[in-house]
Amino acid sequence: MSRYWSPLVHTLSPYVPGEQPKIAQLIKLNTNEHPWPPSPKVAEAIAAELAGSTVDEAGERLRLYPDPSAAALRATLADVHGLDAAQVFVGNGSDEVLAHAFQALLNHRRADGSARPLLYPDITYSFYPTYCRLYGITPQTVALDAHLQLRVDDLIDAARTHDAGGVVFPNPNAPTGCGVARAEIERLLVALPDTVVVVDEAYVDFGAESAVPLIAAHPNLLVVHTLSKSRALAGLRVGYALGHAELIDALVRVKDSFNSYPLDRLALVGAQAALADSDWFTRACRAVSDSRAKLSAELAALGFDVLPSQANFVFAAHPRHDAATLARALRERAILVRHFSRPERIADRLRITIGTPAQCDALVAALRDILGPQG
Amino acid sequence: MSRYWSPLVHTLSPYVPGEQPKIAQLIKLNTNEHPWPPSPKVAEAIAAELAGSTVDEAGERLRLYPDPSAAALRATLADVHGLDAAQVFVGNGSDEVLAHAFQALLNHRRADGSARPLLYPDITYSFYPTYCRLYGITPQTVALDAHLQLRVDDLIDAARTHDAGGVVFPNPNAPTGCGVARAEIERLLVALPDTVVVVDEAYVDFGAESAVPLIAAHPNLLVVHTLSKSRALAGLRVGYALGHAELIDALVRVKDSFNSYPLDRLALVGAQAALADSDWFTRACRAVSDSRAKLSAELAALGFDVLPSQANFVFAAHPRHDAATLARALRERAILVRHFSRPERIADRLRITIGTPAQCDALVAALRDILGPQG
Repeated sequence: MSRYWSPLVHTLSPYVPGEQPKIAQLIKLNTNEHPWPPSPKVAEAIAAELAGSTVDEAGERLRLYPDPSAAALRATLADVHGLDAAQVFVGNGSDEVLAHAFQALLNHRRADGSARPLLYPDITYSFYPTYCRLYGITPQTVALDAHLQLRVDDLIDAARTHDAGGVVFPNPNAPTGCGVARAEIERLLVALPDTVVVVDEAYVDFGAESAVPLIAAHPNLLVVHTLSKSRALAGLRVGYALGHAELIDALVRVKDSFNSYPLDRLALVGAQAALADSDWFTRACRAVSDSRAKLSAELAALGFDVLPSQANFVFAAHPRHDAATLARALRERAILVRHFSRPERIADRLRITIGTPAQCDALVAALRDILGPQG
Repeated sequence: MSRYWSPLVHTLSPYVPGEQPKIAQLIKLNTNEHPWPPSPKVAEAIAAELAGSTVDEAGERLRLYPDPSAAALRATLADVHGLDAAQVFVGNGSDEVLAHAFQALLNHRRADGSARPLLYPDITYSFYPTYCRLYGITPQTVALDAHLQLRVDDLIDAARTHDAGGVVFPNPNAPTGCGVARAEIERLLVALPDTVVVVDEAYVDFGAESAVPLIAAHPNLLVVHTLSKSRALAGLRVGYALGHAELIDALVRVKDSFNSYPLDRLALVGAQAALADSDWFTRACRAVSDSRAKLSAELAALGFDVLPSQANFVFAAHPRHDAATLARALRERAILVRHFSRPERIADRLRITIGTPAQCDALVAALRDILGPQG
């Protein structure tokens, strides 16, 4: 608290990311990073940018501002997704892209000045309420069903009941890992044609259905992606949004009112190289989904209830063991997983990132040891 | 205009950065980049991060999120400036840092809800009014004097007259290049002890007096720096703010409500390496100020009125030649300089970045050619 702070600052409740501790031989299954290193093409492209070219001297390019419109990266993304570059927005990770989307597209009021709430699931990415506070948006949560599934009918009903100004949800959802079918999302878009629907597809490449094919017919759809998960580039900070040019234009206007160059030169070329390596991408996504199937079965054999995941993590509860206690016991064995104490409905679960096969084996062995012979 | 846009978006007037065109053999003196490549230590550090270490495999680190608190970089910056790490905030270029400062520290209201305006010079960095629109801050400009100098007494008078909620100005100012002495800034801080004063020192290393030594005694001072100019790293996107921990905490709260990791792993290590190379820094700053002295004299000899610059650019008017026409003629010769058509008071001037000696020579030769024998 300080007299120097803008009043808003006193009202914020900042997002707390999973920890990045420095522990030797750590098995880090707490922040949903990819178990593989990224495509080797990424380091090659960055090294080439560092070295300059025949036109520039070595290191020359770093002294120059990046392209503020990121035209080359946006053209690559447009190719990857079969869209036009005007339908692509890029930012410093999907968190920055989401922040701009909250401010630019999800903050609506009625004619009398009252807020039209933003709908999102009661159990979801915990950055959403943080963005709402930052931008003065009124949130309205929609409860997942008893199986922790998001029901599109519940979103439609809530949107009508509350005269919602927007809808946002991850698909697959986090931290549940459960996806919504594309046909269901289409039903939502058709039911709410005047409402922007942001589908946060951070984890979609690991097995869910992307809503991107719906963009052509639905001007109210914005799809947000990241290179942090399925491209194994959490350290490079690149995310993007896809949608009608009208929605993209709103994001550009906010971004150009905030920071002209959120992506540095190395991130721009590294991201392009990653996107171009479709072989790496296919193999790496398959490796994760194969490991997920194996790990899910092994956790079930240990007595865990494992939600059916389409993401690069599983969300598991043990009927006889407290989740926070399990997380602490794993941490003592240098294995990090994530436990959310709130909301209470999920306090019995652990979110476990899919690691390498060796890491998954180590996790299962550690859990077997912790659970003991009675399980 | 779109029914999908948040109402705010309709009111924005995004900042327009200097162009980054692709012209062969271009002499680019329009965006105040450093004429030298950055310290070679930067590329070495980035290459080492790319290659990993004995702990990580090659490329391994890019798959992992960066440190959200940027602790290592902040410790280096604290060392460089003789401060504590709690007095250091880092962001994606000084534009992002400034944006957070506008939102976190410069948006104040009276008890009756009316806005307390933010003061800045009438001729200054054109991103400031853009931030005001983004955050709903009421701007109040303070006119530079007849010699385009910022007068601290005018700021103090305006702050009292308008009950200002904050003050921001670049030192040296942009696009004039003229600085305010540290003793004058101290006078301002003492006169307005309840008002946050943000001093934007993007160009300070080229010859102005930094306000950083005033931080210890003045909890209302925030100083913003960038690595884009004097460290020749515009392409890497690193900026920072220095001030009392209470002010820094406000910035952290906003940043952690927006994007946990605005600096990627390569930018973090590259910035640290640049800051550690004080020899490069001293030589590179001196090279620019030497070139500035020579170029200023040569422009004066061609009949230009050149403001006394403490930055890495000069701001020059020719009494007999239209500035926009000169800029176009230079562009035809593949030399880019920047012309601002507004405000009208400066429409007769060109802002010219200090290039290499060869680039400065080429500029002077081109101007001599354009101005003709009569000058």
